[in-house]
This record gives sequence, structure tokens and C-alpha cells, in this order.
Amino acid sequence: MKKYCFGIDVGGTTVKCGLFSEEGVLLDKWEIDTRTEDNGSHILPDVAETILKKLGEKNIPKEDVLGIGIGIPGPVNENGCLPYAVNLHWGFMDVEGQLKEMTGIPVKAGNDANVAALGEAWKGGGAGARSMIMVTLGTGVGGGIIIDGKIVPGFHGAGGEIGHVHVDDSITDPCNCGNCGCLEQVTSATGIARLAREELAACDEDSLLRGQERITAKTVFNAVKEGDALSIRVAERFGVYLGKALAGFACVVDPQVIVIGGGVSKAGPILLDFIEKNYRKYTFSACRQTDFALALLGNDAGIYGAAKMVC
Amino acid sequence: MKKYCFGIDVGGTTVKCGLFSEEGVLLDKWEIDTRTEDNGSHILPDVAETILKKLGEKNIPKEDVLGIGIGIPGPVNENGCLPYAVNLHWGFMDVEGQLKEMTGIPVKAGNDANVAALGEAWKGGGAGARSMIMVTLGTGVGGGIIIDGKIVPGFHGAGGEIGHVHVDDSITDPCNCGNCGCLEQVTSATGIARLAREELAACDEDSLLRGQERITAKTVFNAVKEGDALSIRVAERFGVYLGKALAGFACVVDPQVIVIGGGVSKAGPILLDFIEKNYRKYTFSACRQTDFALALLGNDAGIYGAAKMVC
Repeated sequence: MKKYCFGIDVGGTTVKCGLFSEEGVLLDKWEIDTRTEDNGSHILPDVAETILKKLGEKNIPKEDVLGIGIGIPGPVNENGCLPYAVNLHWGFMDVEGQLKEMTGIPVKAGNDANVAALGEAWKGGGAGARSMIMVTLGTGVGGGIIIDGKIVPGFHGAGGEIGHVHVDDSITDPCNCGNCGCLEQVTSATGIARLAREELAACDEDSLLRGQERITAKTVFNAVKEGDALSIRVAERFGVYLGKALAGFACVVDPQVIVIGGGVSKAGPILLDFIEKNYRKYTFSACRQTDFALALLGNDAGIYGAAKMVC
Repeated sequence: MKKYCFGIDVGGTTVKCGLFSEEGVLLDKWEIDTRTEDNGSHILPDVAETILKKLGEKNIPKEDVLGIGIGIPGPVNENGCLPYAVNLHWGFMDVEGQLKEMTGIPVKAGNDANVAALGEAWKGGGAGARSMIMVTLGTGVGGGIIIDGKIVPGFHGAGGEIGHVHVDDSITDPCNCGNCGCLEQVTSATGIARLAREELAACDEDSLLRGQERITAKTVFNAVKEGDALSIRVAERFGVYLGKALAGFACVVDPQVIVIGGGVSKAGPILLDFIEKNYRKYTFSACRQTDFALALLGNDAGIYGAAKMVC
């Protein structure tokens, strides 16, 4: 009997939905709006409705569905509950219990960044690896740790929150988390722009970045590709921060592969060069050959990983 | 039917052996010499012999033995093999396969520091926790990561090698591992003595440490308990290094408890004060309340953890 599973990725504006075979083939993909009004009370019923509708449309009996995996932008604990999800306007929510009651199908919930990591470990940049560190470089820095093929959610739901590792005592303005000197402040898209502004302010040197209306991670790495010396210094500083941090994490969990994703990773393989060089310099000898890869699944990582949680 | 398991902890000079009930009650404990001559080729046969002898002595049939767990001072990989074990004079060794062949009993092997961590998570300072970071502060700094009740061995056998996380760019003399600026260089027993010598050299201030023939972690923490200002500064520096590093690790695996063991931990609860204060300052908000505990099992942690691997 052919078996199916659903992968659901709840974002602040849309819910991405995927129907998968148990082998991980994406059979159908669609989106619904995330209705955050009324304290987000419509979100889970909307998810249940679209899943049940899809089953009817495809003539799939519920018994052939292994489960629903769902990624949530919030700190999901080991029991599939979360104390709050700011972007969804949720307070405490028993996601697994409620969605199971609405659908009659087993549910597994996870934090969205962790779930995306699992997707990359299953069918993306880390495909085939049993252990992985995923770093997502976007507006912020997220991550996910995969050990023995499973997400490490963490006791407080903070597993893989690597953006908030303290890396620099000299930073005195606060991160979004309230601390100062977080990895996110220097290696996210906004962090890279910050490093670029610092380098520009510190000298009069000519640079492709000088005079640009808006400096972003993209403009920095484009200039790196053009050989712009100042931008290369920015990329080097970025690489030292991230490579050194990852070198330390490797001494903790020693993964098979480290995968870099998020918007910043669109810079391509050159990004890995700056990270890997510094990783290999600072890490423990046994971990020096750890593989690096770029994420492959883009915005679909979340639905893949969600599906993987239940199949 | 009552079931038993063996916990074996192979050290450079002695092999510690324990016979346990499956519930984790230590029924018998003894030691044999570690015969490292002839490339350590006697070690596993000696272990097999002492186990079979104990079974005869206690009239326990092999069928009632769940398995033999064995901790080895070397990088045991996910398949129970290790490429080398310097202290045992071993090259590549399939520990699980060989010891199983000699005894007819299932065998599980692990790195000794990781296995000791599992022991503390089972019956020691972390008893009852499903996830734990263990730090062993001895001549060096070892560690072990427990996730979901199991050791994280790491892809290259380097899981929990937290002594070799880079923490200080200003250190230019090499660690035993070949890198410079490792956590081990500033938080091991020898590292604490190093910090004390630095503080003494940097000022003329009176101190209980001044003029002592041999400065050790023990003399430093004894002086801290006497209120010695210079020693308190040493302990504070130690606490910043270790607390900050642990704060970062918590953003990776977010454990339920952090356990501090090894010879340095004999300083007692005051040691935790210096670590915890800095941990809570630097870590991600969600991890701020993580429990700390001192290790409880001392030299028995290895046999407990080894037994736990097979029951």
C-alpha cells in the first residue's frame, strides 16, 4: 500500500503545504494565507481544512497517511508544545494535540528553522548525512542540529539557536535577543552590511561599495567577486566570525556535514571559501575535514523537513 | 529473570570493571592491570577473561547478560571502532567485534569521556536528565554530550571534545592538540595554574599564592575560599572562559543540565558559582535557567556509563 505524508511550514504570512510519498517525493505543493487575526486562532483549523480537502481531491484515505509534520516559527519543545509564537500571535499552544484532534491524523511539530535543517539533511545539501549543523543566514541567523537523523529540539526549545552565541565582547549595541555581541549581529545579512559600514567608515580607500545607496550582503559579495579589496576584508571578517564559531560547535557535536543556507547563501561557493578556511584553521584536528555544502531546497526545505518528521 | 550487564572502563594503567543489575545497581566492582606491552594486544583478552571468570564465580549464565559496555581512551566512532588509542599502544581496533568474539556477549564501545558523561546522566549529577553537557576538568578538559539519553559520539569520534574549542586569540603557545587558544589551556587544572602565574606576574599584590612552591587549581580555589583577592580574579577569569563557552554550547544543543566533573570539581559548589554567573550573563535567554550540577560518581562514572550503553 502506498503511504503519504504532509509537510506543513507555517510562516508569518503564508502556510506552505506539501504532499509527499513516504520516500520523500514531493507530489503536490500549495500555499494558504496565514490568518493571524483573532490571536491566530484560525491558523490550525485552516491547516486542517486544507489537508482534509487535499485528501478528498486526491482520493487518499486517511489510513494511508503516515502523519502531518508541521514547522512553527517559535520555540517548540520536546513535547510538541510551544509557550508562544510571536509572529503567529499565539500564546501557549499544544500544536500536536490540537491538529491531531482536528484531522484524526498523527502530528509532529518542530521549530521552523530546525525543521528546515532536517529537510536539507534528508533531501538537500546534507542528503545522506546522519548528523549535520545547518546555518541559515538571513535577516537573522538561525540554525538546526541534526543528530542520528533527528532534530535536536533542546530542553527549552533552543536547540540550534546558534545566531545567539556570543562572539564579540566589543559590540555594545544589543541584538534582537537582548544580549550584545551575538553571531547574528555580524554574520546575518544585516550583520554583513554592518561590517561593511564599519570598514567604509574606518578608511578612505576606494571601494565599489562607496557611495552605494544601500549596502547589503548581496552588494558586498558581488563586490568580492569583482576583487574589491575592502569588500574582501568584510568577507574575511565574516568568515572568521562564522568559521571560528562553527569550529567550536564541531568540537561539541562533530557533525558529518555543515550546510549553509538562507538568503546570504545565494552568494554561492565563494561564501563557503571564507567560512571553510577559518573553520579549518580553528577546529580540532579530528574535525578538520568536515564537509561543507550550500543548502539546496530553498523555501521548500521546511515542507521537506516537516514531512520527514513523520515518515 | 534477573538481567545483568558489565561496565568496563579501560585506563592507561588499570581497567575498572563493574557488574550491574539492569536497573543500574552496582553489584560488584574490581580492577585489573592494563597490560600495554606487545602493542596492547593483551588488553581485550584480559577483559574477556575477567568477565568470564566473574560469571563463573557468581553462577550467572551468559544468557542473563544484556551486554558489555566498554569505555576506551580514544576517538571511538559511530561503529564502535577506533583508529588509534595512543595510551593503550593500539592502532586500528574493532573493539566491539573482537570483544564480542572473545566472550559471546554483545558489546558496545565508547570514548571514555563520553561514557563517563553517560554515567553521570544515568546515576550521577545529571540523573534523570535526557540531555546533558558534561565537562571534565582534569589535567586536560574533556567532555561528553548526551542527547535523548544517548552519547553523541560524533562523525569523527570527536563529539564532546570541548577542551579544544578556541576561546582566546591572544594565546600563542600550543595546546597538546597543536592549536593555540583552546579552552583546555585556560580551564584545566594546568590552565588554572597558568592563569594564576599570569596574575602573579602582572602585579606585586600580596596573595596567599605568592611564594607557594607549586601552584595548582587546588591551591587557587583554597585561596579563593580564604578571600584572597588575586585568586578570586583567577577564578573569575576561569569562570568567564568556561561560562562563556558553555553559554555558546547551550545555543547549539540546549541541554537540560550541565555537569562539571574531574579533579578540579573537588573545589565544590564555589566552582559552579564562577561558571554559572558567566554562563547566565552570556547565554541565550531561553537557556538562562539551565541547571548546573557537580559530578557525583567520581572514578566510577566510567563503569556506570559503560553499563548504561548496554542496558
